[in-house]
Amino acid sequence: MRDEWMIRGRVPMTKEEVRAVSVSKLELSPDSVLWDIGAGTGSVSVEASFFLTEGQVFAVEKKPEALELIEKNKEKFGRENITVVAGEAPQALEGLPAPTHAFLGGASGHMDEIIGLLLRKNKKVRVTANIISLESLSELLACLKKRQIEAEIVSMQTARSRLAAGHHLMMGQNPVYIISFGGEESPWAEEYS
Amino acid sequence: MRDEWMIRGRVPMTKEEVRAVSVSKLELSPDSVLWDIGAGTGSVSVEASFFLTEGQVFAVEKKPEALELIEKNKEKFGRENITVVAGEAPQALEGLPAPTHAFLGGASGHMDEIIGLLLRKNKKVRVTANIISLESLSELLACLKKRQIEAEIVSMQTARSRLAAGHHLMMGQNPVYIISFGGEESPWAEEYS
Amino acid sequence: MRDEWMIRGRVPMTKEEVRAVSVSKLELSPDSVLWDIGAGTGSVSVEASFFLTEGQVFAVEKKPEALELIEKNKEKFGRENITVVAGEAPQALEGLPAPTHAFLGGASGHMDEIIGLLLRKNKKVRVTANIISLESLSELLACLKKRQIEAEIVSMQTARSRLAAGHHLMMGQNPVYIISFGGEESPWAEEYS
Amino acid sequence: MRDEWMIRGRVPMTKEEVRAVSVSKLELSPDSVLWDIGAGTGSVSVEASFFLTEGQVFAVEKKPEALELIEKNKEKFGRENITVVAGEAPQALEGLPAPTHAFLGGASGHMDEIIGLLLRKNKKVRVTANIISLESLSELLACLKKRQIEAEIVSMQTARSRLAAGHHLMMGQNPVYIISFGGEESPWAEEYS
Repeated sequence: MRDEWMIRGRVPMTKEEVRAVSVSKLELSPDSVLWDIGAGTGSVSVEASFFLTEGQVFAVEKKPEALELIEKNKEKFGRENITVVAGEAPQALEGLPAPTHAFLGGASGHMDEIIGLLLRKNKKVRVTANIISLESLSELLACLKKRQIEAEIVSMQTARSRLAAGHHLMMGQNPVYIISFGGEESPWAEEYS
Repeated sequence: MRDEWMIRGRVPMTKEEVRAVSVSKLELSPDSVLWDIGAGTGSVSVEASFFLTEGQVFAVEKKPEALELIEKNKEKFGRENITVVAGEAPQALEGLPAPTHAFLGGASGHMDEIIGLLLRKNKKVRVTANIISLESLSELLACLKKRQIEAEIVSMQTARSRLAAGHHLMMGQNPVYIISFGGEESPWAEEYS
Repeated sequence: MRDEWMIRGRVPMTKEEVRAVSVSKLELSPDSVLWDIGAGTGSVSVEASFFLTEGQVFAVEKKPEALELIEKNKEKFGRENITVVAGEAPQALEGLPAPTHAFLGGASGHMDEIIGLLLRKNKKVRVTANIISLESLSELLACLKKRQIEAEIVSMQTARSRLAAGHHLMMGQNPVYIISFGGEESPWAEEYS
Repeated sequence: MRDEWMIRGRVPMTKEEVRAVSVSKLELSPDSVLWDIGAGTGSVSVEASFFLTEGQVFAVEKKPEALELIEKNKEKFGRENITVVAGEAPQALEGLPAPTHAFLGGASGHMDEIIGLLLRKNKKVRVTANIISLESLSELLACLKKRQIEAEIVSMQTARSRLAAGHHLMMGQNPVYIISFGGEESPWAEEYS
């Protein structure tokens, strides 16, 4: 889904290419329960919600400005399966239905507690995180090592064309780490014969 | 969808991150008719087909080895909405139902004829191409310029972690151009008020 | 050499990482004669001139604003072996001493004539070009193909850290193609025994 | 300097583009004293030694196979200003002349001790490190934070062309972090007037 379709304000938003890869890495099923933690504009919640024909998204966000945008995007895209949750993780997460999937969109400084909570709620939870600062990368790697979790780490850098005097100039975007772990065994993982 | 879920043989396959972005750029609707031209292993056909609850995919491929893989993947993933078409584009495309969307996965040397045919069949067709050689990039740019088509061009390079002696080493993947143009006006394009 | 050491004005400048790789790809000798065509701020001329203890740089540029910057940078860095040449390539190149090396810094629209001239002046000239637009890339590839020249093509994308609230955020830079061909056989190319 | 000019064996070598940027980031002067710690094949030592017309390089390496390669490359390129030092850092570094510059080429697990030693020997030492594993990145960031050192961090990913059936395919290389800090104030840092 294009970035410009989203109502954005001045809240930072996951770029569409990173969002597409991140939602893909979540490996959602139609009945998944996704926690979108640090939901920002809600763009990941919206895109993921289209897969969840029988499931739900809980979009958790603390900033009032962002909460308003999530509500607006929920309405614009008509996503009744998104529940907006105001508050800070991990506290705001405690009362929610157990997640099958979680997306961590923003460096929080509470990564260890959040991952601890996710695993307590569902030890087979599938988690995908977007990491943009090197300190958050260190923090997440330390969390995973402590718990002996093996994650898939993908770094991704894109560039987008801008047309100037009939020439396509490629404009570099910021690199992102997309880190994923956990999840139920996929029915497609087995050898086919 | 993970690369390792696909049955692959020795046919080159679009990597999962590139596939996720490419399918996203197609902007499919549930009733879309997608031509996957140069379908390879069929991985794009399979991933796209899950969105097309009322639509269809035509996976066009000339290599016997690849055709066999597409059939196997179609069966493994139970995708009845994929029709495998043996033959070379553009000839093999002539008799198919008009496309709403097309994916060009491989450099063909027939790009101009294929794009001409796509536009003849449906002047509002949405096209996404993956380009890996610089000569194919030149060829596609020339096709688009000739027709005064403005495309979105994204380049994307990823790296994936490999664990060695407890350290994550990032292994560079080959860069890809993802080029998209056309399509019906999106209902979400309009300003929300 | 750091970008911020250069006097810049508003003229676009090759970024320091790209400049370091480009100067390295030129494979200069102390007595080389380098033409820096489309010299911009003169940053490549300055950096290269430090290698040319017995050689010379001709910095060719048409824009008055840029010419002034080259003169200022020449003076700041005390580079007496840089000759500033006002004018447009290829015309402005005709009277200069034959080059052993040439750097093409800007897309010119005259690439074919310039490369023709370079090869006429010295059929073993070593050329390195920085290409940022896809149309210039196509143009250069066509020039090279026509002449059956095999070039080394490197694409390069970097990101630089920015410190925000104690976190290093990586800011993506624009990708560049660095294309090199020709040159005398290196004394180091032979097998060592 | 091209990778293929170096005598390599099976020892991992800094790729030429990364080497060019790294040597540039060192900001060497003709009389610098450079410690190349974890010198591998000696490729950085060789390239840097050409700048040091009055200076010296100490190439420190513990692996016998690599030490042999450094000696061979020193001989091939006739670099009398390179001293090969067998041993492990930081112990092997103790007796050497104080460095003005240091290059850290390999993740060592002793990064904190090495940086401590470097700063003890010369509190204005200029250090450039190449980091390829995410754990080494975390380790180095922690070292720097502890000492309140502000570093420049650059990530760099390249691709190189491979010619196949007349087409240039870009082959992705592994991304590298190039981290630099310290050094004397440059004479070129001041505003020019």
